[in-house]
Amino acid sequence: MKTYNVAIMGATGAVGQQMKDQLEKRNFPVGDIKFLSSARSAGKETNFNGQTYIVEEAVPESFEGVDIALFSAGGSISEKFAPEAVKRGAVVVDNTSAFRMNEEVPLVVPEVNKAALKGHSGIIANPNCSTIQMVCALQPLKEQFGLQKIIVSTYQAVSGAGIDAINELKDQSADFDNAATAEAKVLPVKSADRHYPIAFNAVPQIDQFADNGYTLEEMKMINETKKIMSDQSLAVAATCVRLPVVTGHSESVYVELADAPSVQQVREALNGAPGVVLQDDPANQEYPMPLMAAGKDEVFVGRIRKDLDNPNGYHLWVVSDNLIKGAALNSVQIAEALIEEQLL
Amino acid sequence: MKTYNVAIMGATGAVGQQMKDQLEKRNFPVGDIKFLSSARSAGKETNFNGQTYIVEEAVPESFEGVDIALFSAGGSISEKFAPEAVKRGAVVVDNTSAFRMNEEVPLVVPEVNKAALKGHSGIIANPNCSTIQMVCALQPLKEQFGLQKIIVSTYQAVSGAGIDAINELKDQSADFDNAATAEAKVLPVKSADRHYPIAFNAVPQIDQFADNGYTLEEMKMINETKKIMSDQSLAVAATCVRLPVVTGHSESVYVELADAPSVQQVREALNGAPGVVLQDDPANQEYPMPLMAAGKDEVFVGRIRKDLDNPNGYHLWVVSDNLIKGAALNSVQIAEALIEEQLL
Repeated sequence: MKTYNVAIMGATGAVGQQMKDQLEKRNFPVGDIKFLSSARSAGKETNFNGQTYIVEEAVPESFEGVDIALFSAGGSISEKFAPEAVKRGAVVVDNTSAFRMNEEVPLVVPEVNKAALKGHSGIIANPNCSTIQMVCALQPLKEQFGLQKIIVSTYQAVSGAGIDAINELKDQSADFDNAATAEAKVLPVKSADRHYPIAFNAVPQIDQFADNGYTLEEMKMINETKKIMSDQSLAVAATCVRLPVVTGHSESVYVELADAPSVQQVREALNGAPGVVLQDDPANQEYPMPLMAAGKDEVFVGRIRKDLDNPNGYHLWVVSDNLIKGAALNSVQIAEALIEEQLL
Repeated sequence: MKTYNVAIMGATGAVGQQMKDQLEKRNFPVGDIKFLSSARSAGKETNFNGQTYIVEEAVPESFEGVDIALFSAGGSISEKFAPEAVKRGAVVVDNTSAFRMNEEVPLVVPEVNKAALKGHSGIIANPNCSTIQMVCALQPLKEQFGLQKIIVSTYQAVSGAGIDAINELKDQSADFDNAATAEAKVLPVKSADRHYPIAFNAVPQIDQFADNGYTLEEMKMINETKKIMSDQSLAVAATCVRLPVVTGHSESVYVELADAPSVQQVREALNGAPGVVLQDDPANQEYPMPLMAAGKDEVFVGRIRKDLDNPNGYHLWVVSDNLIKGAALNSVQIAEALIEEQLL
C-alpha cells in the first residue's frame, strides 16, 4: 500500500492531539510522521501507533520530504510556515482561518464540496468548527429542498479556545458559590483587554469584534458557509455564544427552504446522510446534547420542527464534537479525499 | 398611607423568597402578611422586615382578609387555591401557567401592557420568565419601528426549575471529569421519564413536549408574546435550551421591524426605556451576561446588529434575572400597578 509522510503542526494543542488520534483510528496510510510545534512545546514526548516521538520545533526545513502537513497552531504560524511547506512539495490542510477566504484556497467539508479540492495550489483550508457541523446538517436539505436562508445561534464549548480555556473552566467550576468573582485570564479572547468568567455564565463573544458589530466567529460562519455551499446569494446570520461546556458545539438553526417538506421528509433527508446522525424523538426525550456528542465523529441533528408562521421555515438543533468533526476529523478526511482523488 | 394585606403562596420556593425580598426592597405598603405553602414546607420560619413568621399550610380559609395574593407554587396549586382566594375578596397575581392563556385573565408585563389590568376578574397572570424579558426589550422597538417577526433561541438558567435544580447543578459541577455520567434526577423535567446531567451540557428541552414537536416552554413564549403584545399576527418562533447557569436567562433574538432604523436608532430606542438597560459597546467588550445580570432588576440588551441580508432584520442579545424581572419583581410590579390604577 502506498504510504504518505505526514507532519502535524501544533501537535501539542487540543486539536493537534485529536489529529493524531484520528490518523491512528482511521488507519491513515502514514509513512513517516513528525510532530511539530513552537519552541515552547518542543521536546515533549508523544506516542503514535505504539512508538514514542519527540515534538520538534518547526523550521522551514521540517517540511522536507513531507507529503501532507496538518496545521493547527494558530493563524500567524500558518501564514509563516504553510508557504514553506508547499514550497517543499507538501500539501497543507490548514485548520486556522489564515487562508479560508483566499479565492485560490479550497475550503472543504468532504461531505459537502469534495469537488472543490480539484485544482488546489497546495493549501486546503479546513473551515471553522461551528461552520462544519452546520453545513453537514444542512447540505442534505439544500440538495433535496433548496436552501435560501439560515439564522443560527450557537452554544459553543470552551475547548474551541484551547487547553487553557478548558483548565480555566475547570478551575472556575470548583467554586460554585463565587462564580461571579472567579479569576478569568483566557476567555472570551486571550489577547483581548477584558476577560470574563465562563463557569455558570454565557458569554456572547467568540473571537474579536469586526467593525460591523459582528464577531469574527460570526463572520466566519456567514462567509464560510456561502463559500462551502457555493452560493453567495444564500442569506446567513449568526450569533455566537461561549458556554460552560467542555467539548461539543450546539446550534439552534432556523432555515428557510425553497420547498415546504413535512418534518418527516426533513427527517428522511437527514437520516443516513453522510456524517449525520438523526436523533429526533421528542416522545422519548431523544435529542442531541454536547455532553453525549463529545468524543463522537458524527453530526447529530434533532428538535426538527416546522416554523408555525412561515411554511418554508424549519428549526433544527445540531450538535457535534468541535475538536473531531469540527477540526481534526475533517482535516484528516480532507487528506483522505486528496489521496482518493489523486490530488496529492 | 393605605396598606394592603398580602399572602405569598409558595413562600419557601426560589421565586417565593424573591417575592418577599422585592416587597421589602420596594417598600410595598404591606399591612398584614402571611406566608403559605404545601403541608411539606409548613412550619418553616421566615423573616420579613425584621420580624419572624411561621410558614403556614395553605387552606381556602387562609385567604380571608387578604387583599393581594402572590402565587408561585405550581399550576395545580394555583388551579385549586386561586379561585378560593378570589372568592374571599383577594386579587391573585399568579406566576404559574395555569391561567395565562385564559381569555378573561390579563397577562401583564407593566412596562408593556399595564392597560390590560382594567376589567380583571380577580386573577392576573404573570408571564413566563423568558417571555417577560423578551417583551420588555422588544416593546420599545415595536412602539417606534413596528414589530413583525421574532425568532428567539434561549439560554436558560437552572433556577427556573427551582431549588432542586440549582442543587443538582452544584453537585454535578463538583466532578468535572465525570460530567457525562453524573447522576441526574431533576432536569430537564422532574416528572419526565428521562433525566440528563446539566453541568457542562446544554439540554434542548424545557418543560414537556407538545404534539407539534415544540416544548411547552417554547409554546409559552410564542403564545404569551402574542397575547401580551395584543398582536395575533406577530410571527414568533422559539427554541428553548437549559444551560449550566444558576440564575439569569439569555436570549439570542432576531426581529424583523416594519421600519429599517439604524443600529444607533435602535440603541436610542432602548436606552432609558422602562426597565431596560442598554449594554452595547463591542469596542470595550460590553454586553450583557447572566452572571452579571443575576441579582439585578433590569433587562439588559446588547450585541445589537443589523442583519446583513434583510434590511428590516436585527439581532439582539437580551439577559435578565429570571427570578426577579422574570418572576418575583414582575408580580410585585403588577400588584403596584393594581394599587396605582385603583383596581384592587
